[in-house]
Amino acid sequence: MEMKLPGQEGFEASSAPRNIPSGELDSNPDPGTGPSPDGPSDTESKELGVPKDPLLFIQLNELLGWPQALEWRETGRWVLFEEKLEVAAGRWSAPHVPTLALPSLQKLRSLLAEGLVLLDCPAQSLLELVEQVTRVESLSPELRGQLQALLLQRPQHYNQTTGTRLCWGSTHPRKASDNEEAPLREQCQNPLRQKLPPGAEAGTVLAGELGFLAQPLGAFVRLRNPVVLGSLTEVSLPSRFFCLLLGPRMLGKGYHEMGRAAAVLLSDPQFQWSVRRASNLHDLLAALDAFLEEVTVLPPGRWDPTARIPPPKCLPSQHKRLPSQQREIRGPAVPRLTSAEDRHRHGPHAHSPELQRTGRLFGGLIQDVRRKVPWYPSDFLDALHLQCFSAVLYIYLATVTNAITFGGLLGDATDGAQGVLESFLGTAVAGAAFCLMAGQPLTILSSTGPVLVFERLLFSFSRDYSLDYLPFRLWVGIWVATFCLVLVATEASVLVRYFTRFTEEGFCALISLIFIYDAVGKMLNLTHTYPIQKPGSSAYGCLCQYPGPGGNESQWIRTKPKDRDDIVSMVRKGLSDFSSVLAILLGCGLDAFLGLATPKLMVPREFKPTLPGRGWLVSPFGANPWWWSVAAALPALLLSILIFMDQQITAVILNRMEYRLQKGAGFHLDLFCVAVLMLLTSALGLPWYVSATVISLAHMDSLRRESRACAPGERPNFLGIREQRLTGLVVFILTGASIFLAPVLKFIPMPVLYGIFLYMGVAALSSIQFTKRVKLLLMPAKHQPDLLLLRHVPLTRVHLFTAIQLACLGLLWIIKSTPAAIIFPLMLLGLVGVRKALERVFSPQELLWLDELMPEEERSIPEKGLEPEHSFSGSDSEDSELMYQPKAPEINISVN
Amino acid sequence: MEMKLPGQEGFEASSAPRNIPSGELDSNPDPGTGPSPDGPSDTESKELGVPKDPLLFIQLNELLGWPQALEWRETGRWVLFEEKLEVAAGRWSAPHVPTLALPSLQKLRSLLAEGLVLLDCPAQSLLELVEQVTRVESLSPELRGQLQALLLQRPQHYNQTTGTRLCWGSTHPRKASDNEEAPLREQCQNPLRQKLPPGAEAGTVLAGELGFLAQPLGAFVRLRNPVVLGSLTEVSLPSRFFCLLLGPRMLGKGYHEMGRAAAVLLSDPQFQWSVRRASNLHDLLAALDAFLEEVTVLPPGRWDPTARIPPPKCLPSQHKRLPSQQREIRGPAVPRLTSAEDRHRHGPHAHSPELQRTGRLFGGLIQDVRRKVPWYPSDFLDALHLQCFSAVLYIYLATVTNAITFGGLLGDATDGAQGVLESFLGTAVAGAAFCLMAGQPLTILSSTGPVLVFERLLFSFSRDYSLDYLPFRLWVGIWVATFCLVLVATEASVLVRYFTRFTEEGFCALISLIFIYDAVGKMLNLTHTYPIQKPGSSAYGCLCQYPGPGGNESQWIRTKPKDRDDIVSMVRKGLSDFSSVLAILLGCGLDAFLGLATPKLMVPREFKPTLPGRGWLVSPFGANPWWWSVAAALPALLLSILIFMDQQITAVILNRMEYRLQKGAGFHLDLFCVAVLMLLTSALGLPWYVSATVISLAHMDSLRRESRACAPGERPNFLGIREQRLTGLVVFILTGASIFLAPVLKFIPMPVLYGIFLYMGVAALSSIQFTKRVKLLLMPAKHQPDLLLLRHVPLTRVHLFTAIQLACLGLLWIIKSTPAAIIFPLMLLGLVGVRKALERVFSPQELLWLDELMPEEERSIPEKGLEPEHSFSGSDSEDSELMYQPKAPEINISVN
Repeated sequence: MEMKLPGQEGFEASSAPRNIPSGELDSNPDPGTGPSPDGPSDTESKELGVPKDPLLFIQLNELLGWPQALEWRETGRWVLFEEKLEVAAGRWSAPHVPTLALPSLQKLRSLLAEGLVLLDCPAQSLLELVEQVTRVESLSPELRGQLQALLLQRPQHYNQTTGTRLCWGSTHPRKASDNEEAPLREQCQNPLRQKLPPGAEAGTVLAGELGFLAQPLGAFVRLRNPVVLGSLTEVSLPSRFFCLLLGPRMLGKGYHEMGRAAAVLLSDPQFQWSVRRASNLHDLLAALDAFLEEVTVLPPGRWDPTARIPPPKCLPSQHKRLPSQQREIRGPAVPRLTSAEDRHRHGPHAHSPELQRTGRLFGGLIQDVRRKVPWYPSDFLDALHLQCFSAVLYIYLATVTNAITFGGLLGDATDGAQGVLESFLGTAVAGAAFCLMAGQPLTILSSTGPVLVFERLLFSFSRDYSLDYLPFRLWVGIWVATFCLVLVATEASVLVRYFTRFTEEGFCALISLIFIYDAVGKMLNLTHTYPIQKPGSSAYGCLCQYPGPGGNESQWIRTKPKDRDDIVSMVRKGLSDFSSVLAILLGCGLDAFLGLATPKLMVPREFKPTLPGRGWLVSPFGANPWWWSVAAALPALLLSILIFMDQQITAVILNRMEYRLQKGAGFHLDLFCVAVLMLLTSALGLPWYVSATVISLAHMDSLRRESRACAPGERPNFLGIREQRLTGLVVFILTGASIFLAPVLKFIPMPVLYGIFLYMGVAALSSIQFTKRVKLLLMPAKHQPDLLLLRHVPLTRVHLFTAIQLACLGLLWIIKSTPAAIIFPLMLLGLVGVRKALERVFSPQELLWLDELMPEEERSIPEKGLEPEHSFSGSDSEDSELMYQPKAPEINISVN
Repeated sequence: MEMKLPGQEGFEASSAPRNIPSGELDSNPDPGTGPSPDGPSDTESKELGVPKDPLLFIQLNELLGWPQALEWRETGRWVLFEEKLEVAAGRWSAPHVPTLALPSLQKLRSLLAEGLVLLDCPAQSLLELVEQVTRVESLSPELRGQLQALLLQRPQHYNQTTGTRLCWGSTHPRKASDNEEAPLREQCQNPLRQKLPPGAEAGTVLAGELGFLAQPLGAFVRLRNPVVLGSLTEVSLPSRFFCLLLGPRMLGKGYHEMGRAAAVLLSDPQFQWSVRRASNLHDLLAALDAFLEEVTVLPPGRWDPTARIPPPKCLPSQHKRLPSQQREIRGPAVPRLTSAEDRHRHGPHAHSPELQRTGRLFGGLIQDVRRKVPWYPSDFLDALHLQCFSAVLYIYLATVTNAITFGGLLGDATDGAQGVLESFLGTAVAGAAFCLMAGQPLTILSSTGPVLVFERLLFSFSRDYSLDYLPFRLWVGIWVATFCLVLVATEASVLVRYFTRFTEEGFCALISLIFIYDAVGKMLNLTHTYPIQKPGSSAYGCLCQYPGPGGNESQWIRTKPKDRDDIVSMVRKGLSDFSSVLAILLGCGLDAFLGLATPKLMVPREFKPTLPGRGWLVSPFGANPWWWSVAAALPALLLSILIFMDQQITAVILNRMEYRLQKGAGFHLDLFCVAVLMLLTSALGLPWYVSATVISLAHMDSLRRESRACAPGERPNFLGIREQRLTGLVVFILTGASIFLAPVLKFIPMPVLYGIFLYMGVAALSSIQFTKRVKLLLMPAKHQPDLLLLRHVPLTRVHLFTAIQLACLGLLWIIKSTPAAIIFPLMLLGLVGVRKALERVFSPQELLWLDELMPEEERSIPEKGLEPEHSFSGSDSEDSELMYQPKAPEINISVN
C-alpha cells in the first residue's frame, strides 16, 4: 500500500481492523464451530458472541529412504506461510508464499476422491487413528500390519533449539511403542510454540513413496476432538486433521508435491472453514474446488516456479471470500459499511461522534467531557511501559529545544518582553495543564511558527503606536479567549470536516518547511559566529557540512531502521525506541571527544522575568488608553482564526482513524483548554500556545504499539497508540525542572538540537502524499511507482492538483515573510476556499483519489455514479481489494 | 540472483547467454518453422542454421458499451509482460507478470474446444478473415451480417503519442469500410514499434459480451501468411493469430478474463511454439493443457490476486520446457554441458583454451599471439563509442591519482631515488606499451601496493649494506624478468586454475583494504597539516567529516544509480556514464566556490629525474661489487612470486566467463609483457608495474555494453565489454602528457582524488561474496538474505569458512605491515595452500557452494555423488533453475 486512500476514515472504528491477518493469531482458547475463517477480527467475534476457529499449524512428514531405511521426516511446515526444511544447510527456510504446481492439486483431488475420508473420527490416540486409517479393503492383513508399524514410527523433526542438522528429534529412528502418546521434551520446548496462540491445533500431512503398495492410498481424517498424537507433530499441539498420501513409485516428486498441496490447502483459511464443517466427501471436494476457483495462476514462461515470494505486506481480505452462510451469520447482527457507495455517502469524518453537532450551547464540550472522564484513570495506568520512558526522553528533548529556540526568537521579536525563561515556564505550565485537562492528551502544546509570526507583528504594531506591549497583548489574549469560547459554545469545531487532506497537508507542509528552514537557518547563522575558515587565516581549510553533525547523525540513525520493517527482536526494538536519544548522545559524545567549542544549550540560571522591571503578573492597562482594550478585538479576531486553524488541523491529523485511537477525540474540549490557557499565559506575560503538529506526531509515533506474537513471515501489526496523559505531563514537568538543570544540559551542543528539528521536519514532510506527488512532477512516467492514484487519475490532472497546492504553499510562505503577514490566518482559511473552488476544476472522482470529498460534494454524488469509468472499463473489482486493505498509519506518523 | 554460483565459469562461452530473454527480441526477419520458443540464443540459432520464431505482440480488444454504443477498445497488451490500459488515468500500466484466475483458463478451453479453429487460414485481409470466422452454422444470415459489421468496425486504440485519454485512434467510432486495409498513421508512428525487432508478428484477441448471440462464439485462427489487418492492432504489424471470444451476457468479467487468458497463453513462448506447429484442434488443446501443467499456483488466502508482480530479474529458463522433438533438433548438433555432472567434471577454467598446456616451450605464448593477432584491427575500431570517452576520463583520473600517490610514496620509501615524475613517466611508458602488446588490453598497469612494500624493503636492505640502490635494483629487475620468462616458457600460467574464488577474493579484499586504508590514511594525514580547530584558537569550531567532501560525494553520486537498475534512457545513461567525472567536477567546483585551501594535485613542472645527479639510464654496476648482481637473484625470486600472483589473479578475475569476453585472454602473453617492461623500467630507474586489480575492474565496468531494445518490462541485458586497446592507450598517453598539464590539474583538490580511491576500494570490496559472508557473521539468522549458499551449507560451516578467510586476511595484513613483509609473496602463495588444506575440513559439496573446486577435487568426485542430500530430501530440481540462470557479472565489476 503506497498511499492513503481517500475516505478511509469513513469506516467505523470497529470495522477498521477487520482484515488484519493477526486476527488469525488472536488468542481464543475455545475451539468450536465459529462463523468465519479469519474475516472478522477478535473484537468483532466478541461482539457477535461467537468463538473463532482456532489457528492451524500444518506439518508435512515425508517418508524417505525407500526401500532400505524407511523413516518419516518433517520437510515443511505452514502457519500463514510456508517454511521448508533445508536439509543440507540444516535450517528452516525464510517463510514464503507457497507456490504449487497445478497437476499436484489435481492428483491430490483424485486421490482424495477415491480414498478414505473420516470426518469426526473419534480416535483418542495415534494408535486408534492408525487403526482406523488402515481399515481399507484393498490392503491385505500383512500389508496392513506393515503399514501400521510404519505409521507408528516416530518421525524425525529438525530440532531448532540445538540448531545442527544432525539433531533431529532422535538420532536413530525407533519404534514408537514405548510410551508413544506422551509428547517428547523437544516438542514442548519448541520455540515455535510461543508464536502460536493458546488453542491452536495441528494438522499433519504424511506423504511418500511406499513400494509395497499396489495402488495409491489416500486418507483424510478430521478428529472429533483434537488430541495430541504423541510425537507426530513438531510442537505438542492437539491434532485436528490428518492426511495420508502414500503410493507406489511415481515419476518425479509426486508425493512430495501432493503433500505440499494438501498442506497448503489446509493452511488456507477458507478451506479450513469449509473442511471444519464438511459432513461428507462431497463437501471436502467442493471446498477443494472452491480453492481451485480462487487460485492465482502465473504463466510458466514469465515466472520461475522455484522463485520464493516473500510474504506480502498485506494479506488479501478474506471478507470477499466468505461463503454466503457465513455472511448471513455476521450480516444482520452488525450493519457495516462495506460498499463503496456507503463509504462515499458519509464523509470522512461523518462517523466520528465527536463531530456530530448537538445543537445545544456548549453541547459538544459537555459531550467531550462525558466521553473522556471514564478513561481518566486508564490515562495514567496505560503509561506503565518502557516505551513511554523512551518517548518522554525524545519528546522532552524536542520540547526543550523548541522552548529554547522559540524563546530566543520571541525574545528577539519582542525586545526581551518575553524570553527563554518565559518560554520554559510557559511551556511547562501550559503543557502540563493541557495534558491534565485536554480531550486529546497526546497533543504537545508549543509556541508554533505562525503564532510567533503573529506576535512579532503585534509587537511592532504596538511599538509603532507607542503602546505598552504586555497590557495590550493581555487584551488581545482576553479577546482571543472570548472568541474561542464562542467557537466552543457554538460547536464550531464540527467545521473541521471541511479540512480535507488538501488543507491538512498544505498546513503540515508549511509547518515542516518552517522547521527545516529554521534548523538550516540556525546552522547557517552559526557560520557567522563560527565562520568557515578561508585561506589566509592562520589555520585554514576545513568545511562544515550543513546542517551539522548532530543533524546528520540523528537523521541517519533514525531513518536506517526504515529499511527493515521486520525488525522485532526485543533488543533491537529497544535500541530503535531510543535511537533518537542515542543519536543525541552520540552527537554530544563526538562533540566532547573532539573538544569542539560548539554553542551549547544555554539555560537561564536565575528564576526571574527576562525583561528587568516587570513582575510575573501583567497589569491590565499599564500606560495604554482604555479603548485600546476594545481595539485589541480586531487583531484578536485574526489570531483566533489562526489558533482555531492551527489547533484543529493538528487535532484532525492526530485523531485520524488510521491511528486506531480507542479513547476518542475532544475537539471542543481541546479548544476550550487552549482558550483558558490563552487567558492564563496572557495574564502572566508568557508565550501563547497551541497544539504543535510535528512534535505531537513525533509523540504519537514514539508510542506506537505493534503486535509481538507473529506467525513466521507475518509482519508485526500496528495495534494502536499508547493513549495516556502521563508522558506529556512528565515531559512538561521535566521542561519546568530544566530551568534548574543548567549544569547537565550545558553539554548538549545546539547543532545536535537543530538536528532533531531538521529530522522532525523532514520526517513529517516526507510522509505526506503531497511530497510523493511533488516527486512525481520530476519523474519520467516510466519510473513512477505504481500508485493506485495514478491508475485512476490522468497524470496531467495529478500534476495540476500538485501545482495548485504548491502555488498555495508558495503564496502562504511569501505572505508569512512579508509585512502582510498579519492576514496570514485568513489566507490559511483561504486554503479551504481554494479546495472548495477546486470542485469546479476537478471531477469528484479525481478529488476522491487526490484528496477527500467535502460534506456537500459527497451528498451531491449520485448513488452509483461515483466511479463510472469502472462500469465501462470492466475493472470495477480490480483495485477494490487494495482499497479495503487495512493499513497502519502512513501519513505523518510513520517517521521511523 | 543474489550471489555468484560456484562453477558458473564452467559453461562454454557459447552456452552462457542461452537463457537471455532478449533472445526473444533479437532481430531475425525470416519467420519460419524454427526449432525453439526462445530457448537457444541468437548465436545458437545461427550455429544451428535454423531461423527463430518471430516475436509476437499480443493485443486484447474488448467489446464495450453493450447494448447502445458498441465499440472495440484495446484494453491490454503483451510482449513479454502484461500492460493494462488504465482508462481513468489514460495511460498504460507498468509492465507486470500477468496473473490469471484458473476458471477463466478453463472456460477458454471449453470455448475453444467447441468453437471454430482455423489453422493456416489463407485470408489476405481483415474482410476475408471476418468472412471466414463468421461462417458458423449456428448463426443466422442476419446475425452473421451484424457480426461482420461489428468485427470490421475500427477499434479504438489508446494513443500513446498524444498521451491524453481522449485521443484514441479516432474520436468517433466509424465503419472501417473506407480504405480499411491501410494502416493508420498512428499505427506506424507508435513508439512501441521501435521496441519490437523486425519480423515481429501480431496476435489479436477480441473478447466481449454480445447480447444478441444465443450461445458463446469462440474462434481461433492462425493465418498462413501474416498480413497487416488494417487498423486492428495498435502497431502496424502483420498479424499471425486471431482469437474471437464473444457470447451472451455472463456474470462478472467473464469475457475480459477469458480474453486475458487467451492473450497470456499466446504470449507464452512454449505455447507459441506449439501453436505455430499445431495441425488441428487436438494439438491446440494439448498445447493449452501443457501450459496448465506448468503454471504456478498461488493460494488465494496468502496472495492477493490484484497485486501486480513486477517483472522478475531473470526469466525462467525455457530450456527445461522444450518438448522432446525440439531437443532432438538441437541436441546432437551441438553437444552441450547442461547436467550438473558435466559441469563438475570439468574445472571452472578447464574450458578456457588459454589454459590448456601445449607441452612445448613458449607454446602458450605462441598460441596467445596467434589468438590475439586477428583481433588487432578491431581492438581499435571497437573503441569508437561515446562510452569509451567517458571511460578514458574516469580511468585517466584514477591513473593519475595512482601515479601521484604511489609516486609520492615511492619517493618517500627510496629517499627520492624515484619520485612523482618517474611514476608519471613509468606509468605512461609501461601502460601504453602494455596496451599495445598485451593479451588482455583492458588491464591497466599500475604500481601496486604489494610491489611498493617490496621495493621499500629492498631499499632499506640496500641501505643497510651500503649498496648503490638503483644498480642493485636493476639486477633484481633483470632476474625477475628472467624468472618470469622461464615461467612463460614453461607455461606456468596454467597453474592459475588453482586460484579459486578463495584466493581471488582474499587477494582482492586485501588490495581493496589497502586502497581504503590509503585513502582514509591520507585524509587523516591531512588533518596534521590542516588540523581540526580546537577551542582556544582564535577561530574555532568546525568538524571535518572523513574522508572529505570529495570522497563522500563521489561515492554518493556513484552508488545512487544502483537502486534503479532499469534506468536506460540515453540522457540518464549518459549522465551515469559520467557520474564519477561529475562528482569530481562537483568536488572541484565546491572547493573553488568556498575558496578552500585544500591541497591540490601537484604535477612536476620540469622533465628531469627526481633525484638530482642521476641520468635516465641506470648503470648496471655502479659502486656495487659484481657478485651483488648474482645475489640479487634471491630477492628477485620472491618478487617474481609476488608479480606472478598479482598479475595472474588480476588476469583470472578480468577474464571470468561472466564478463562474456569475446576476444579471449592471454595469460602467457601478459606475463611476457610484464617481464619485458620489468627490464625496461629497471634499466630506466622507473617504478615496477603489474596489472592493478581494482583500476582494471573499474576500467572494464566503465566499458559495459547493455542491450537497448527491450520489450516493456524487460531489463537491459549485459552484453559484454567493449574490448579494445584504445581507451587504455589514450589513458596512458594522457598520463604522460599530464607532466605538462600542471596549470589545469592544479585545480583538483587531493581529497577529491582520495575520494576516488576510497570509492574504488569500497566498490570492489562490497562486490565480493566474501563481504556478503562477513556480513552474515553479524546478522541474526532471521534477517539473513535467501542466498542459495545458505540453503545448502549449514550456517556454522559458512561462518567457519569466513572466519578462516578472515584469519588469512588478517595474517597477510600483519605480515605486510611488519619487517617480515619480505616473505609476503610466499604467504600470498600460501593462500592456495590453505585452500588446499580446507579440503580436509570441508566436504566437496560445501566447497562447491562456498568456493569452487580445484582440479584434483573435481576429478575425485564420483559421477553422481556430488549432491547426495538431494536424492534424499527430494529437492533435486528445486534450485536447478536458479543455478542455470544466466547472469551479468556480479563479482567485482558491478560497482555502479
